[in-house]
Amino acid sequence: MSDKQRNADRASANRAAVATGTRLDPWYNTYADRALGMRQSEVRSLFAVANRPEVVSLAGGMPNIEGLPLEFLAEMSSRLLRDRGASILQYGSGQGSDELREMIVEVMRPDGIRGHADDVVVTTGSQQALDLISQIFINPGDVVLAEAPSYVGALGTFRAYQANVVHVPMDAEGLVPEELVRVIDELEAEGKPIKFLYTIPNFHNPGGVCLSAERRPRIAEICQRRHILVVEDNPYGLLGFDGDPIPAIQSINPDGVVYLGSFSKTFAPGYRVGWALAPTAVAARLTLANENALLCPSTFAQLSINEYLRTYDWYQQVKEYREMYHERGRAMQEALEEYMPMCSWNSPEGGFYTWVKLPEGLDAQAMLPRAVTNLVAYVSGTAFYADGQGRDHMRLSFCYPTPERIREGVQRLAAVVRAEAELVDMFGLRGGDGAKPSPGEFAWPRV
Amino acid sequence: MSDKQRNADRASANRAAVATGTRLDPWYNTYADRALGMRQSEVRSLFAVANRPEVVSLAGGMPNIEGLPLEFLAEMSSRLLRDRGASILQYGSGQGSDELREMIVEVMRPDGIRGHADDVVVTTGSQQALDLISQIFINPGDVVLAEAPSYVGALGTFRAYQANVVHVPMDAEGLVPEELVRVIDELEAEGKPIKFLYTIPNFHNPGGVCLSAERRPRIAEICQRRHILVVEDNPYGLLGFDGDPIPAIQSINPDGVVYLGSFSKTFAPGYRVGWALAPTAVAARLTLANENALLCPSTFAQLSINEYLRTYDWYQQVKEYREMYHERGRAMQEALEEYMPMCSWNSPEGGFYTWVKLPEGLDAQAMLPRAVTNLVAYVSGTAFYADGQGRDHMRLSFCYPTPERIREGVQRLAAVVRAEAELVDMFGLRGGDGAKPSPGEFAWPRV
Repeated sequence: MSDKQRNADRASANRAAVATGTRLDPWYNTYADRALGMRQSEVRSLFAVANRPEVVSLAGGMPNIEGLPLEFLAEMSSRLLRDRGASILQYGSGQGSDELREMIVEVMRPDGIRGHADDVVVTTGSQQALDLISQIFINPGDVVLAEAPSYVGALGTFRAYQANVVHVPMDAEGLVPEELVRVIDELEAEGKPIKFLYTIPNFHNPGGVCLSAERRPRIAEICQRRHILVVEDNPYGLLGFDGDPIPAIQSINPDGVVYLGSFSKTFAPGYRVGWALAPTAVAARLTLANENALLCPSTFAQLSINEYLRTYDWYQQVKEYREMYHERGRAMQEALEEYMPMCSWNSPEGGFYTWVKLPEGLDAQAMLPRAVTNLVAYVSGTAFYADGQGRDHMRLSFCYPTPERIREGVQRLAAVVRAEAELVDMFGLRGGDGAKPSPGEFAWPRV
Repeated sequence: MSDKQRNADRASANRAAVATGTRLDPWYNTYADRALGMRQSEVRSLFAVANRPEVVSLAGGMPNIEGLPLEFLAEMSSRLLRDRGASILQYGSGQGSDELREMIVEVMRPDGIRGHADDVVVTTGSQQALDLISQIFINPGDVVLAEAPSYVGALGTFRAYQANVVHVPMDAEGLVPEELVRVIDELEAEGKPIKFLYTIPNFHNPGGVCLSAERRPRIAEICQRRHILVVEDNPYGLLGFDGDPIPAIQSINPDGVVYLGSFSKTFAPGYRVGWALAPTAVAARLTLANENALLCPSTFAQLSINEYLRTYDWYQQVKEYREMYHERGRAMQEALEEYMPMCSWNSPEGGFYTWVKLPEGLDAQAMLPRAVTNLVAYVSGTAFYADGQGRDHMRLSFCYPTPERIREGVQRLAAVVRAEAELVDMFGLRGGDGAKPSPGEFAWPRV
């Protein structure tokens, strides 16, 4: 039985076990309240099925790491183990390796960040930074602000800590400052304390857009004035198709931002190394939480990454990734234009994702099984909202499949959308006259 | 500035930042309740100081991994990266690699465990398994039972989840069944729900003792009857100085036990790989929690360990570790007999630790600065209790220093204890007549 098949079987057994509760699980009544809120994300549920080789997956966010210099990494790894094995295989500091933290300070410079290694906490992927941040800030019921839509993995973690996620609208320039003020005002009027604003300013997941340079100081200023911490998640910042990154919100107000970075997209996810740069006292608490969670991040993984950054032209590697993703992004746009005139979408300038609006009346979640039957997978927009919105959208990833496969996938998906639209027409489920939005128009209404 | 010096400075800055609260931390009023309960463990606070080369550290629990086959690991790692780089550097399953989980089933066989790979969840060290278990089971205020004393890292995690840790006495044969029943009865009478019993049955940290073969079915039966989940933490099980491991509690009642294992002590901690074997439905929830926490454990680390287990005579390596620790344990015993007749202690038959009782009136926590000044470090017994007990004990580790250094350290420590005892005599702080318990007597009263 293949790994993938096993994973598929396991995933469905998991869902069954979690769903059935008391009858199959003698410990059901023992769980904490937060455990009952945890559920498998739509992305993960789909993972096993979407990974079948015959399916074109436009669903996952797996980077394409075929271009990595494996020969170089093999020699590097063997040198590290030979020369420093007894220390790199030992426990390390809960905050992370000094060497790597100093290197991370350099890695953040293109984003305009002038941080100090003492304020960097190394985590097991930036997902774990989200977990630690949730752990130290979120009491059950606390409000967390997030863009509408937002990263599914962050929403899952916030849910696990029983946060009340309130979405703030975004448009083609990212988070809308006026909407942010409106939402804060409403929440304050209701007496609901806001713990932080979670935002992905660059090549948004799933939105594909960037928070514009003009808006960044406004967002920073609003949050500073209202004393709201900003959690700035930036895994894709260096993966813009051209040009330099827009300076991070952190660079505008370092005392008010926890900035998250990751090596998963610019190098490789298999090491599981990310980081948080935080105001000093927050960094100290994150370190404590990190020690509670896993004593220390993997020394081997950290020093492997440090050595790679130190001895390889990693920025050139990032440029190669960028070109590769640019080509795939273009393939996605061209295929959408050719096959999906009935939908609208945005044109991302970097990152991994396109956010596509379906014709009126179609439901991305309900359509998914039909898509998978037609050997193409995507993620329903509903995965990216805490409140059930998003049925009219789907996220298409262009990071992993080749341009040819992307084209093939979009073509298959177009057939599914057409068939679904016919069904909707036939049963009169559509509200309006189905007038299609212009292709290239941003997929959610400007405000 | 050296790494260690930096760590020391950082650690003290951390403590200052965490301690001072509002004045230095603009986000102080934003933290979750649980964050305010997190504090640096006594072990961690000491880490930087105790690691200075001139100090003999009998404090840490770092394994001695000098004996690892680094040349073999270097070649293995380079082969893995060359042949399978694109998959081992990619994201993997949240439950952990299939290959490794099947190997883990084999690794548990000497403990009498007949588990299934589907019920194994790979974690980032077994510390993270403790974190996930806490996350899915502990509501604030819930009772967790733990031996008196218990592992400092577990107590820190339970505290972070705001558990109410209730200690159950142990003696030279481990957890006392009658005491367990008494404590459960008392808690039930008070209407306090018990979430689980946390126990370290083999070469207890810090107690050094094993739960006897006779008591294991009794403990299993008591917990089964009262419907209390057992969390059986077994990092040292294969490190008995001679003979085979006693069968795990899990092997007696698989449906009622979450068993935790780790490669940190039998192989190397720097990969950060541990695991939980749990009843199927609990394993499914742990997988969900793992995905929330960090998406997936490091594929590279998992497959490195899998390859090591598959291609190296790892059990022979464990035997070599065993002999090395046996020699060090003996050195510790001999030094205690020679230099510390005023104290009492137990004679562990495996693992890393000896639990030492001080002469009456001495306070291990208060004595520590004097010990460090005298260039020897230990951990005060207070670290291992949730309720402030333990001042009359210290944990001495024999895992990391050489036999010569152990001897030197115990000699230095003896001078400190003598000087402290004179002070106590001088100021009349001692309660009784200071009659010394017999060396070799178990350090806490039998019940």
